[in-house]
Amino acid sequence: METLTTTAALRERIRAQRAQGQRIAFVPTMGNLHAGHLQLVQYAKTIAECVVVSIFVNPMQFGPQEDFARYPRTHDSDKAVLQDEGTALLFMPDVQEIYAGGDVGQVTRVEVPGFEDDLCGQFRPGFFTGIATVVTGLFNRVQPDSAVFGEKDYQQLLMIKRMVRDLCMPVEVLGVATMREADGLAMSSRNGYLDAVQRARAVRLYEVLGEVKAGLEAGRRDVGTLEQQAMESLAEAGFKPDYVSIREQDSLKVPNPQATQLIVLAAATLGTTRLIDNIKISIT
Amino acid sequence: METLTTTAALRERIRAQRAQGQRIAFVPTMGNLHAGHLQLVQYAKTIAECVVVSIFVNPMQFGPQEDFARYPRTHDSDKAVLQDEGTALLFMPDVQEIYAGGDVGQVTRVEVPGFEDDLCGQFRPGFFTGIATVVTGLFNRVQPDSAVFGEKDYQQLLMIKRMVRDLCMPVEVLGVATMREADGLAMSSRNGYLDAVQRARAVRLYEVLGEVKAGLEAGRRDVGTLEQQAMESLAEAGFKPDYVSIREQDSLKVPNPQATQLIVLAAATLGTTRLIDNIKISIT
Repeated sequence: METLTTTAALRERIRAQRAQGQRIAFVPTMGNLHAGHLQLVQYAKTIAECVVVSIFVNPMQFGPQEDFARYPRTHDSDKAVLQDEGTALLFMPDVQEIYAGGDVGQVTRVEVPGFEDDLCGQFRPGFFTGIATVVTGLFNRVQPDSAVFGEKDYQQLLMIKRMVRDLCMPVEVLGVATMREADGLAMSSRNGYLDAVQRARAVRLYEVLGEVKAGLEAGRRDVGTLEQQAMESLAEAGFKPDYVSIREQDSLKVPNPQATQLIVLAAATLGTTRLIDNIKISIT
Repeated sequence: METLTTTAALRERIRAQRAQGQRIAFVPTMGNLHAGHLQLVQYAKTIAECVVVSIFVNPMQFGPQEDFARYPRTHDSDKAVLQDEGTALLFMPDVQEIYAGGDVGQVTRVEVPGFEDDLCGQFRPGFFTGIATVVTGLFNRVQPDSAVFGEKDYQQLLMIKRMVRDLCMPVEVLGVATMREADGLAMSSRNGYLDAVQRARAVRLYEVLGEVKAGLEAGRRDVGTLEQQAMESLAEAGFKPDYVSIREQDSLKVPNPQATQLIVLAAATLGTTRLIDNIKISIT
C-alpha cells in the first residue's frame, strides 16, 4: 500500500493503475477505522482491481460545537489494517490540500436540496453541504469508477446518490449494509466515546428501531405514534433523542399509505455522544 | 461533425476519441453563435485534437423576469458554422437530459461564495449558481482536458476558475479575449435584441469603459468618482446602468492602492436589453 498526501501524487499513481487497465473503487473515510469500514474495503475489492481509501477528517461537515478537534485520529493503526485488507492507495491529505481556497466558509460548496433541513440536517447545520462538498472534491481527485459508502449513514448515502445523479458525476455509488457489534449496536467511530455504562445502554437504539420495525411488520400504520413511542423508549433508556422517523426507503419521503419499502432512522445522544442508526423494512 | 443529444452517446464518442490519444477541449455555449464564439472554438482547436461544443440554454441561470423563453435558438445556422470551424462533437441536450432530477429549484446546486452578491450577481439572483451548476454537470459529462470561456463574461470566467480550483475539478479553464464589432461593441447574442437606434448607442458602453481606463492610466485614483461619472455618462447615453466597477483583475476585489492590474466592468440596460462589458487596465 502506498500512502499519498497530495492530489498531484495521487493522480499520477491512479493514472498508472488505469494504464494497466485497472478499475478504481474508492472508499472515503474519516479514519479511526473499524470492522464496518473494512467491510467497505472488502466490498470495493470485489468490484475493482485498485482500491483507493481516503482518510480525511473534514472540517466543513463539523459544526462549531461539534467534535472536529477531538475526532479520533488513529493513523498508524488505520494504515496497518488497510494494508492488511489489500488497499492499493491510501490518500491522506491535510486540510490545506483539500481547502487550498482558504476558509471552509469561503470555498465553493455543493448543496443537495432537501437534506440540510431534514433528519440529521435539522440538527447539524451545514453537515450535509460539508459532506457533499468534500465528497465532490475527493471524487474529482480520485476519479473512481465506483465509490462505496456504508448504509449506517443512510441519509448521507442517499444524498451522495442524488448529487451524483443531478450533476452527472461519472461515478457509481454503492451502499454496503451496516456492520454491527455482537449485541446489535451499529459500528461507529463515535462508539469509542462511550463509557462502559453508556456502551451497555447504547444497544437500545438498535432495539428500539427493531420495535418500530416489528410494529410495522405486525400491521401497524400509525406512523406518528410509532415514532413518538420510540422517542419515549429512547428517553427512558437515557438517550436524548433527536428524531425517530419512518420514511420511504428510496426517497426518504414521508411514506404514503401504499409504500412497502420503508426505513426507520434515528439519531439520539447518550451523554455527549450522538449516535445514529437505521433499519430497512419491507412490508408485504 | 457529429451531433449528440444524450450523455450516454456523448460519453461513448468521447471515449472513442480518447482511445485514439486525442485531447478534448470543450466550449460550452447557449447557441446563437457569433464570431466571438467561433474564436473560442478556434482557440480550442489549437490546444486539443477534439473540440466539443455544447449548445444548451440553461433555465437555471435565468430569472423569472428574464429572457429564457425568448433567448434566440438558431440551431441550424449554429450547426453550419460549427461544422465549418472543425468542431468534432456537438452536444445539444434538452432540459430533461440535463435536469433529469426534476425542477431546477430542486436539483443539487454548486455555489461559489462571493459571486451571487457582487456585480452581476446582485442584479440577477441565482444567475451564478445556475451557471456553476450547469457547467459542473457539463464538465462531468464531457470530462474535457480544457474548457474555453470568453472574457466578456469576466465574472463568470473567474467564478468557473474558482470553482474548478475549490472542487479540484480535473479541467484547465482558459479565457479568450473579447471579440468586438468594428465600432468596439462587445459581441453578444443579446446584441440581436437591439433596434437600429439602440445599436448605434450601444457602443457607448465600450467607450465609457475606455474613458475610465484613460482616467486610471492618466493617474487618477478617485475610483468612486470615476465609477460615478461613468454611470452618469451611460445614463446620458440612454442606458439604465446597473453598475460600473473598478476591481483587481485576478480577484475582483475592490482595488487596494498598490494594485496595478485592474479591470473595469459594467452592466447596463438599453431598452429591455441588458449588456455587459469590461476592459483590463495595467497601471505602470
